[in-house]
This record gives sequence, C-alpha cells and structure tokens, in this order.
Amino acid sequence: MSKINYDLSKIRGVAFDVDGVLSPATIPMADNGAPIRMANLKDGYAISRANKKGIKLAIISGADAQSIVGRFTLLGLKDIYLSVADKLPVLKQWMRDNDLNPEEVAYVGDDIPDLQALLYCGLPVAPRDAAVEVKSVAKYITGVEGGHGVARELLEEVLKAQDLWISNNNEYAW
Amino acid sequence: MSKINYDLSKIRGVAFDVDGVLSPATIPMADNGAPIRMANLKDGYAISRANKKGIKLAIISGADAQSIVGRFTLLGLKDIYLSVADKLPVLKQWMRDNDLNPEEVAYVGDDIPDLQALLYCGLPVAPRDAAVEVKSVAKYITGVEGGHGVARELLEEVLKAQDLWISNNNEYAW
Amino acid sequence: MSKINYDLSKIRGVAFDVDGVLSPATIPMADNGAPIRMANLKDGYAISRANKKGIKLAIISGADAQSIVGRFTLLGLKDIYLSVADKLPVLKQWMRDNDLNPEEVAYVGDDIPDLQALLYCGLPVAPRDAAVEVKSVAKYITGVEGGHGVARELLEEVLKAQDLWISNNNEYAW
Amino acid sequence: MSKINYDLSKIRGVAFDVDGVLSPATIPMADNGAPIRMANLKDGYAISRANKKGIKLAIISGADAQSIVGRFTLLGLKDIYLSVADKLPVLKQWMRDNDLNPEEVAYVGDDIPDLQALLYCGLPVAPRDAAVEVKSVAKYITGVEGGHGVARELLEEVLKAQDLWISNNNEYAW
Repeated sequence: MSKINYDLSKIRGVAFDVDGVLSPATIPMADNGAPIRMANLKDGYAISRANKKGIKLAIISGADAQSIVGRFTLLGLKDIYLSVADKLPVLKQWMRDNDLNPEEVAYVGDDIPDLQALLYCGLPVAPRDAAVEVKSVAKYITGVEGGHGVARELLEEVLKAQDLWISNNNEYAW
Repeated sequence: MSKINYDLSKIRGVAFDVDGVLSPATIPMADNGAPIRMANLKDGYAISRANKKGIKLAIISGADAQSIVGRFTLLGLKDIYLSVADKLPVLKQWMRDNDLNPEEVAYVGDDIPDLQALLYCGLPVAPRDAAVEVKSVAKYITGVEGGHGVARELLEEVLKAQDLWISNNNEYAW
Repeated sequence: MSKINYDLSKIRGVAFDVDGVLSPATIPMADNGAPIRMANLKDGYAISRANKKGIKLAIISGADAQSIVGRFTLLGLKDIYLSVADKLPVLKQWMRDNDLNPEEVAYVGDDIPDLQALLYCGLPVAPRDAAVEVKSVAKYITGVEGGHGVARELLEEVLKAQDLWISNNNEYAW
Repeated sequence: MSKINYDLSKIRGVAFDVDGVLSPATIPMADNGAPIRMANLKDGYAISRANKKGIKLAIISGADAQSIVGRFTLLGLKDIYLSVADKLPVLKQWMRDNDLNPEEVAYVGDDIPDLQALLYCGLPVAPRDAAVEVKSVAKYITGVEGGHGVARELLEEVLKAQDLWISNNNEYAW
C-alpha cells in the first residue's frame, strides 16, 4: 500500500511547478539578479522513467529560464510552460490536449500562485517546506523539501502503484 | 493573533539588510572573490505583494552587487541603497522621504553594522542565525535562518495583520 | 576493528558513481540546464592518498561533464568513464584490466542505474540518502549523505585496515 | 569567561586554512573541475575587525585560487599563502616575520595536511566537521561547521578577551 492516500492507479498525468518544487526555494543569483535554478538528479531518474512509461508530464512555471527548458527537454519532456502568470488556464489546456480528467492528474506546487491549480486537480501535492496555504489544501506532503527529491518521491509511488517501477535487470539503466 | 508581539497594523515601511537576511551568510564566490548572493523565491512573492499593497520597502546593504539591484528591481522595489558603510543615516533619510515614524518601521538585520538601525526602528527583526548582539536587541527572531524565508515570514505577518494577504482567487497570481 | 562489516584487507579496487555519491543529489544548473557538479575536499584528500598507496580507483558515471575529468585527473586518477548508460560491463572490463576479483572491489552508488554494479562487487556501498533499492543491497551505508564525504569515509576505513592511512609526520602533506 | 579554555589575552596572531575552514568542505566545481570556494560574511566582519585592531592574520592554503586572494585582500589581509604543500614551514616563517611565539598563535585547520601546524601553535582550533585526527589534537572545536562562521566564532572570543570587540556606537560600521 502506498503512503499516499489516493488511488494512484488513476494517475495518468503529473504537472510540476519548478521553484520550490523541482528546485529549492533558496538558490544562487546570476550577475543580473536572475535566480540560478538547481536540479535533483534522483528526480531526474524518476521523471525520465515516468515519461518513458507513458505518464504525461508537464512543467508549469512562472519563471523564464532556459536552464529549465534544457534540463527537462533532456529528460524527454515536451510540455514545458514558462513565464506563466496564471497557472490554472495553462493546466486546464494541457489536460484537454491530453484528455486528462482532474482525478487523473497530480499537481505539485509550493506557493500561493499554485493554489488554484492545486485545488483543480485530483491529487494536490506539496513539498514539506511549502507555504502553509498550500500545505493546507494538499492531499500529500512530501517527506523532503523542495528541490530535494519531491518528484522522485511522488513518481516512484505512482509508478509502483501501476507496476511500472523497476521490475527486472534489463530496466536498471537510464 | 500574530506570533510577533508588536502592533503590526502600524507598520507602513520595512527595510532589509541583504547578506545574512535576504541571502544566506555562507555563499559562493566569483573568480575575483566577490560573494555571489542568493535569493529565496518565497521571499520574492511576499516582497512583490507587499510592494503592490503599498508597504514601503527598502534594501540597505553594505554590499556593492548588481545582482541585488536586478533582483529587487524586478520585484518592484525602487529604494535600493548599496555600498552603505553607515546604515542609520540612510535609514533615517529614507524614513523622512516616506514620512515614516520609527514605530511604523521594521528593520531586519543580522550583524553588528545593523545594530544602530535596529535600535532606531520600532520593530527590530533578526534571523535565527543573526549575531548574538543583534538577537539581543530584536523584538522578533524569525524561525528560519538568513536567506531561507526571513522576509516571507515577516511580511506575511504584517500583511495578514492589515488584511492584505491573500483573500480571494483573483489575487493568487503574481 | 572497522565499522564496515567486511574484510577490508582484501579491497584492492574501488569504483565510484559521481552524482549522489561524490557530488550531492541536488546541484545548481548552468544556463543550458546542465548540472554543475560539486566536490567534497575531504574526499579529495582520501582519493589522492588511496591512489598514491596503490588502491585502484575508477569513476563510472552516466554524466558527461568535463569538470569530473578535471577534478579527478588532478587527484591522480586515470580510469574515468563518463556517459556510461550501462555500468556493469564497464565495471567488469575495468576489473579485468586490473586483475581484480569481485571480492577485491567496492562499488559506491546511489540510484537504480548502479544496482547491477553494486550486486556484482564484493562490497556494495551506499550513501545515507541513496535510493531505498540501493540501500537494501548495500553491505555498508555511509554516515554522510552523497557529496558530503562518502569517499573519505570508505577509503579511510580501507586504508586503515591495510595500515596505509597516516602513520608518521612525513606523510601529513598532500 | 570564554568558552575557549585558553588564555586568549595572549593571542596576537591567527592563521587559517581555507577549504573546510573559511569555506565549506563541499563546494561547486567550475567547468574545468576547479573547486569554487564559498565565503561566510559574518566571518568577513570579524576578520576585518580583528585586522584593524592589530591581530596578525594569515591565510595558509594548499589551494591555488584567485578568489581567495580577492576576498581576503578586500578584508585587509596581506599574508595570503596559496599552493602550500607543506604548511608548517610557511607558518613558522610567518611567525618569525611577525615576532610571534607559538603560545601567541592560533591555527585553524580541518584535515591531515593541517596536523603539523596545529601541533606547533599554542591554540589549535578545528571546525565541528574536521577530520577525527584534527579534532583529537584541537584545544577548541567550533560549534559551527567549516565555512559557516568558524573564524567569527574564534575571533569574536579573542577580541572580547582583549576588549577589542564592539564597545560603543561609533564602532558599529564596517
């Protein structure tokens, strides 16, 4: 049984905020003040695998950073939405494009701009250090902080529930 | 009731030191030895919102780093004072320019050069890892360390006390 | 007696994964999204010393990063394998080239792509924050997390077991 | 009374290792694999003040990094020794040049290459995460880890013992 109290066999799509979710809340700045995003490499393994196994994955971020495009394109993702001021319409459009119902979708966010998207999807997920408003609407709060394996923790549970996590030696490699 | 023992409805202005407050005390160095400041993105949301809601905000730093200008200009701030050797005169001038009395102002600092400014304002605030001299004069010590959400913790309380924190769905976005 | 339950006098070769082992799992990204690896300098001292004392050392990583070549070449290593999708064949070839039997080899890895290599060697080692599947097959789990002294902790024990750790003043320097 | 069990009124000189002492043990790497040192800004305040108050200060590092020169020159230091393979002769020469006896000198180091220098000076100091061999010879172990305020913790105690720490408002600024 999963530690997530939700029927994970239903989940066909997962959408992620970046800052505070796939990258920590505190990060270095470039000379011009632009935040330099970070990546968790165990997240990377799970995102790549979930993508190969047919889980629909999206990045929906208010940020405008080419590093995000570069990183998640390399992991196989195509649906990467940046500079998104209002996240819910983008989430809805992505769900329509992929024939996803709310109960089939998990959304992971950490702050106020994520609240509407979190309330719309079936499985709202928050990192341990998310804003209190976000944690109060989340159905699952990860054991790790943002940027430290949030996607790994969620996707591993989803894939296990669907027998898509590692099962034989031939699947160990990237 | 707020966890801060001060009448936060009075607060009309907040001034921040950068190093050890909005950026952690330990940070990377560029090739020439210049510290590379970091940003907390949940701080960013609260600073942007407080600014839009009319709270006067200032950055008063001994540092000389364009990243600070870039970051906080993007968040809507105009009063950014760098290379400040003596902070109190700058704080006083900023308060005069904005018709702010000491009891209407919170100042957040972490080290000895902040002491006079902290003693002058109505609500002196220190991060959890501030110097002992600073913590001894602070009326509020944040639950987080410098660079890890200090501004968020303070501004959220100030805005809540003035009913300016999130109140309806239309205000969720940046 | 060592805290590692293995006859460390047998160990003649140690192979390391990089991400999550010699470098932390969460790291900054370059503008193009490429992860920027980190180094632990106490690891560096132990790697350099083990190399000088004749322990065979290899780096086997799925990453493709010149920083890894630069860092470990400087520490004296020659067997640095990057862009390795399937690690076990590379480990086996390296062991053949160096006449190493499985019982003479420790392998340190943190994630699913390391599982086969870990199962093949005599002493599989995992950082404290390794994937659960990896920790379940490890014979030793380090007290530190990946990137925070994993190699130091292992190599120090191996060298002590073989009386190759510091023994007199002439050996203190790098 | 100081938390350091040593007559700190005697200390006229302090020499620091960099990696694992003034900069954390785990740090990012540049593209060529060179470690990117970090700085603690509260250390910076104490180093600058100690220098102005006449305490002799030196940096003795095995590293070869211009960032170290840039950072500590800015803080007022002149005695910065890089690429030092054998630290004890450099420490001795610096002490002779400054007429310092061992009992007047504190040395702060974290790893095996620092052992001889630590054993030679009157007050050997180690960060909390120093190598066990170093901690076993240290007369004081700081409450913080390397790179997170080690110099601040030591210099503050030294300056307080000599009534050179903050005493009036005119001395608050940098």
